[in-house]
Amino acid sequence: MNREDRGPIQRLVDKDEIVDLVHRYSYCVDHRLYDEVVMLFTEDCIVDYGPSFAPPVRGRSALRRMFGHPSAGFAATSHHNANILVAFDDDDHATVATSVYAWHQRTDLTTPRLWGYYHDTVERGPDGWRIASRQLRVLGTEDWGAEMHPAVGREGTTRHASAESSEHP
Amino acid sequence: MNREDRGPIQRLVDKDEIVDLVHRYSYCVDHRLYDEVVMLFTEDCIVDYGPSFAPPVRGRSALRRMFGHPSAGFAATSHHNANILVAFDDDDHATVATSVYAWHQRTDLTTPRLWGYYHDTVERGPDGWRIASRQLRVLGTEDWGAEMHPAVGREGTTRHASAESSEHP
Amino acid sequence: MNREDRGPIQRLVDKDEIVDLVHRYSYCVDHRLYDEVVMLFTEDCIVDYGPSFAPPVRGRSALRRMFGHPSAGFAATSHHNANILVAFDDDDHATVATSVYAWHQRTDLTTPRLWGYYHDTVERGPDGWRIASRQLRVLGTEDWGAEMHPAVGREGTTRHASAESSEHP
Repeated sequence: MNREDRGPIQRLVDKDEIVDLVHRYSYCVDHRLYDEVVMLFTEDCIVDYGPSFAPPVRGRSALRRMFGHPSAGFAATSHHNANILVAFDDDDHATVATSVYAWHQRTDLTTPRLWGYYHDTVERGPDGWRIASRQLRVLGTEDWGAEMHPAVGREGTTRHASAESSEHP
Repeated sequence: MNREDRGPIQRLVDKDEIVDLVHRYSYCVDHRLYDEVVMLFTEDCIVDYGPSFAPPVRGRSALRRMFGHPSAGFAATSHHNANILVAFDDDDHATVATSVYAWHQRTDLTTPRLWGYYHDTVERGPDGWRIASRQLRVLGTEDWGAEMHPAVGREGTTRHASAESSEHP
Repeated sequence: MNREDRGPIQRLVDKDEIVDLVHRYSYCVDHRLYDEVVMLFTEDCIVDYGPSFAPPVRGRSALRRMFGHPSAGFAATSHHNANILVAFDDDDHATVATSVYAWHQRTDLTTPRLWGYYHDTVERGPDGWRIASRQLRVLGTEDWGAEMHPAVGREGTTRHASAESSEHP
């Protein structure tokens, strides 16, 4: 069944589920529900938080270990997602760009902050939509101290703008 | 009529109205439209902003007095909601978790900030959806100076995660 | 065709496209996709960023020049939209209020920040929804240094609250 055969209703339902998926990631991370976080991803997911966390995490098990590792720990985190743009590649695959404003607090009470975008690919599986790949690209940080993927290239042009291909101009 | 009897369209319409309700709260608070704020709640609402504001506010009239009280005043506030997760309990009741990033400015120009979640129950009345209960749970603050309900418990587990039961995994 | 003749589905589709339009503005500005930014507006748009940028920008060409002007440049920007409220005036016109939390970084590494609302009118054209007018009204700033339109008047009442007329209370 191609895109024209499904109606706008199915698209709205799918988009709603994809937006929920993105929201749930931040909710679960901030509430330390790590077993739930990894279930939002496909079994063979690729998650790339940046060159300081290289190589990218591959698979749910590795992702779960990363979240549980003591050195990954902050005293608190708060991730705020906005500007979600969903572009369907076909009925079961979509590309998603989501802005993130993240406030963190270390145990020494310093507060590293980050502003950027998650670039995801999502796919529909037997149990609903899952994140197949996620890459974090950064517009700016304060008190951060780790090298990140830049959202905008050195020439001032965007590095990658999959959301440009969205159906809505 | 149970959930299966209504279609996905009604659910999307209801969810859209609930998201608007949550958005309108922040819009009205920041623009000091306090008479409008209280109409977003049920007549017998319970609103719990935290132990420093105990006991919880009960009812629209008490809520209106709280917003109008001079000691409650900031020179400016800006509440940004994100990550809204809606879980329907039945056709007329839902549980909502909404992240809030709140910037405030006191008259002395200090800027208390807060990152956390509103946990709401909402219900459909004769005039549409209303907030029946709201509790603010906090992930972090800066320059805040008031005791708040924690979003995450001391053991590092989430204190309450009603949004986990959402229909979308 | 009046409002009653279209169903809730069309309204949801339209609202979804309008929300995407608002999201895309911030995505494109932050990624310096200025040719794309101006295509989100009508040819004869009016864009009012505040008295420091007076008079308001009129038309796509002038808007494109403004974005390309070196003095307008920041080393980085990150705009986070939330609390979007859409009120339809008729099937092809709507009024939109959108909160914006904007983090900027100058080349000297100072970080001007702004909290406020975009007040837009949008209209449906042959190629979809476009922004016909946008005015930025501000709740607060830090390290900003430019005069802005206030969101709340000196009397503590809201200056203009078009979103109050939304269909959802």
